[in-house]
Amino acid sequence: MTQSSETSGEVALIVGGGPGISSSCARLFAESGMRVAVAARNPDKPVLATLEKAHGVRRYACDASDPAAVAKLFADVAKDLGTPRLVVHNIDGRVPGIFRKNILEADAAMALETVRNSAFSAFLTGQQAARHMLGNEPDANGVRGTIVFTNASASLKGYPSSGAFAMACHAKSGLAQSMARELMPQGIHVANVPIDAAIGWTQEDGSRAHRLAGTAVEDNMADPDHIAKTYLQLHRQHRSTWAFEVVLRPWVEKW
Amino acid sequence: MTQSSETSGEVALIVGGGPGISSSCARLFAESGMRVAVAARNPDKPVLATLEKAHGVRRYACDASDPAAVAKLFADVAKDLGTPRLVVHNIDGRVPGIFRKNILEADAAMALETVRNSAFSAFLTGQQAARHMLGNEPDANGVRGTIVFTNASASLKGYPSSGAFAMACHAKSGLAQSMARELMPQGIHVANVPIDAAIGWTQEDGSRAHRLAGTAVEDNMADPDHIAKTYLQLHRQHRSTWAFEVVLRPWVEKW
Amino acid sequence: MTQSSETSGEVALIVGGGPGISSSCARLFAESGMRVAVAARNPDKPVLATLEKAHGVRRYACDASDPAAVAKLFADVAKDLGTPRLVVHNIDGRVPGIFRKNILEADAAMALETVRNSAFSAFLTGQQAARHMLGNEPDANGVRGTIVFTNASASLKGYPSSGAFAMACHAKSGLAQSMARELMPQGIHVANVPIDAAIGWTQEDGSRAHRLAGTAVEDNMADPDHIAKTYLQLHRQHRSTWAFEVVLRPWVEKW
Amino acid sequence: MTQSSETSGEVALIVGGGPGISSSCARLFAESGMRVAVAARNPDKPVLATLEKAHGVRRYACDASDPAAVAKLFADVAKDLGTPRLVVHNIDGRVPGIFRKNILEADAAMALETVRNSAFSAFLTGQQAARHMLGNEPDANGVRGTIVFTNASASLKGYPSSGAFAMACHAKSGLAQSMARELMPQGIHVANVPIDAAIGWTQEDGSRAHRLAGTAVEDNMADPDHIAKTYLQLHRQHRSTWAFEVVLRPWVEKW
Repeated sequence: MTQSSETSGEVALIVGGGPGISSSCARLFAESGMRVAVAARNPDKPVLATLEKAHGVRRYACDASDPAAVAKLFADVAKDLGTPRLVVHNIDGRVPGIFRKNILEADAAMALETVRNSAFSAFLTGQQAARHMLGNEPDANGVRGTIVFTNASASLKGYPSSGAFAMACHAKSGLAQSMARELMPQGIHVANVPIDAAIGWTQEDGSRAHRLAGTAVEDNMADPDHIAKTYLQLHRQHRSTWAFEVVLRPWVEKW
Repeated sequence: MTQSSETSGEVALIVGGGPGISSSCARLFAESGMRVAVAARNPDKPVLATLEKAHGVRRYACDASDPAAVAKLFADVAKDLGTPRLVVHNIDGRVPGIFRKNILEADAAMALETVRNSAFSAFLTGQQAARHMLGNEPDANGVRGTIVFTNASASLKGYPSSGAFAMACHAKSGLAQSMARELMPQGIHVANVPIDAAIGWTQEDGSRAHRLAGTAVEDNMADPDHIAKTYLQLHRQHRSTWAFEVVLRPWVEKW
Repeated sequence: MTQSSETSGEVALIVGGGPGISSSCARLFAESGMRVAVAARNPDKPVLATLEKAHGVRRYACDASDPAAVAKLFADVAKDLGTPRLVVHNIDGRVPGIFRKNILEADAAMALETVRNSAFSAFLTGQQAARHMLGNEPDANGVRGTIVFTNASASLKGYPSSGAFAMACHAKSGLAQSMARELMPQGIHVANVPIDAAIGWTQEDGSRAHRLAGTAVEDNMADPDHIAKTYLQLHRQHRSTWAFEVVLRPWVEKW
Repeated sequence: MTQSSETSGEVALIVGGGPGISSSCARLFAESGMRVAVAARNPDKPVLATLEKAHGVRRYACDASDPAAVAKLFADVAKDLGTPRLVVHNIDGRVPGIFRKNILEADAAMALETVRNSAFSAFLTGQQAARHMLGNEPDANGVRGTIVFTNASASLKGYPSSGAFAMACHAKSGLAQSMARELMPQGIHVANVPIDAAIGWTQEDGSRAHRLAGTAVEDNMADPDHIAKTYLQLHRQHRSTWAFEVVLRPWVEKW
């Protein structure tokens, strides 16, 4: 790919580490010649160890809802690999107990925890990314850095039995918009990418899972490898034509 | 007014108590024959004492971001006055130190505190309101109760130097939408009302302040007495024609 | 009603005349003391004759997609009744043959006709309303006049098999927004009111139809009598707190 | 570029032909190995003759607001080059006399003409594209074809003194949404791309004009070469992750 030359030596940091979008991003970015760091609460997950072995991805332990931990993460990555030019915030943040709970049932502490895990960690990640990236020289596209927030359809619509997640996702969108208006004129591309679909993932045997049970359509989930491509394209957009929000959904998705 | 007869004996609870929208709501609701409760962190503010004297408004102390305190508030109001049919959440929630701070400068703890004060208190208020109102009989318009969330233009757009508030206001919108989809089919009207403007207030001498300094136009701020009228109209809407979101702005506002 | 005194002698013009919203508006406005004109392609419909007999509503023949006809309508109403303070554009405009046609099937001429009937007639009506109203003195609420555009959920979302109507309704929203930004600072309240529902109507025997066939819920359609109330409230809003867009839907509507 | 192999032999049709986006698309698509057709009212413009000479782009005369002419265009392109897999509708459509006219001044006939030129031609183009593309076999990404509608910020917001254009652009958005919901599950990717900015162009001497007069920032206009890249990326998106709407704006644009 011609992309490799453009990105050689660039540092990418992915905050949040699972077998879906984070893994796909780590692989694609590494294959494009970037030095890649992934941060997760538990960096010892097999999926992350595999990324290290196969792609040289560096792993960091970080609770992304802790201000000091996020500051340390960015300082460590800068020291170890260099200042990132591409930062992806890829944390869902839902406490399991909050799933499918309506306003009558939802536990208040879990609702607040969900907002902290998701939106507040986005704030901390975005803040550190901005502080570090402003020191970068503009690249050939005029870009000092790109910050991508993975988001969900709950950022576009408040669904029933999903109030806490609607709060978290809407908050993340509001933050991203505010940051975009502040940072884009300073050369930092901020993007909000709601995925309006179930998302596929890599299974233990290394194969891709991207089919929803009970349907005949093969590609009825968003394939995270293709999501990662869009993220990289966003990072490559010339600053004269930046997209702020891109909603991705599979061809068969109802909306 | 013919409205009085419709509302006689109804209980209204206003969460958040200041000289602007809360005071105007308390006055209008009381004049319409409702029994009115106002909750504030400090219920001893002169503006609330005045409401009690002039309009029989009952005052409650409540930190609306504390789950137990909000549960107690609703229990107390139900016992003292009866179950509310109209609940207004009217809390801005910004910590002073977060004003006009961009993402580089904003203090993380203050950002989280702003979200707790505003969006999380809306969650707690909305949850208690829903739990209590579902026991009400439908009124002549088929309504068991109305929950109004005052919101701001930061819920419509993430402005620069306003990231924390954008998070809080967007979160509140997402919550309100989710609650509306859950509760409207059960007879509870949920409304989100972003005020896209500076808001006037009552001054110490009892006169209305509603002119922005340095302009010739008299009515260039949203008059909270008129905001209160819209809230009451929302409460009176027949359930066959409910509005969920109403953005209010003065005639001269740019948008 | 105290409203009567506020509106006594005011002129209202409803463009489009059927048994639903137009009839409900005509009745409510007349009962509120306004002098009411209704314009329709065929002013001899029984439903309009009934309005004349029962409420003194004046009927005008007008093809609202014809510039000269709309200019003549406003001139005639001004001469006969006085300059309107409240104008409602209430035309759906769909050519029957365009219903439920997808992009492969839709007849191009019918699609264009739908846009002309709906959005272009809104343009002509809005233009004449603006030209006439700017000569009005502000009333007690600071209002020279109110222009309400009835709209549909197709203005909020482009549904499948509804492309031509999506074009028409979106166009109407764009027009209304542009007019609002131009005219509100001049004292004319412009409002766009998408009705996100099936709408009830008056049946031949004078009773209201507001139940969708095959459902148990009595009030599962938007009741046009209540839509008319919202229009009148919009006309009464003080100019310090104007709503531009109000989406109305029944409590049981999915959205 | 690896892209060449993916697109070799594919046919692209650009409806609308000027020195900005259309020219940039024609060049990029041709350089990517596609056979390119451009349709314009006047195909003899020097800019199009240059594209033919330098890139083998085929020119067609077509009034895109005429149903028969658009049907003939698609039939001719299919016969001459093959069925298109990528169709770009890139027509602004504003009649010069409608520029900067408010609702009081705007000529009604010009307003309707603007809607016909822009939105109705989009309807005709989209309809023919859909009819032809459904016969294509899915490519490696599962795509039968891509239809891109260039749009403007007037599709996002109704600006003052721009009512007719707001109608046209909003109509185009509504159409695109409806088509997307119909056609995406059939393997046709429909995208709406509002450019929220002034757009650069190629000057007579072949150099790029992309600086707004009177500003210090070099790249303060959307560069159409980069817009074209986004269009090609949209065409290459795997059907498991399609974007419907992408708003592009320069880094320094206020929004």
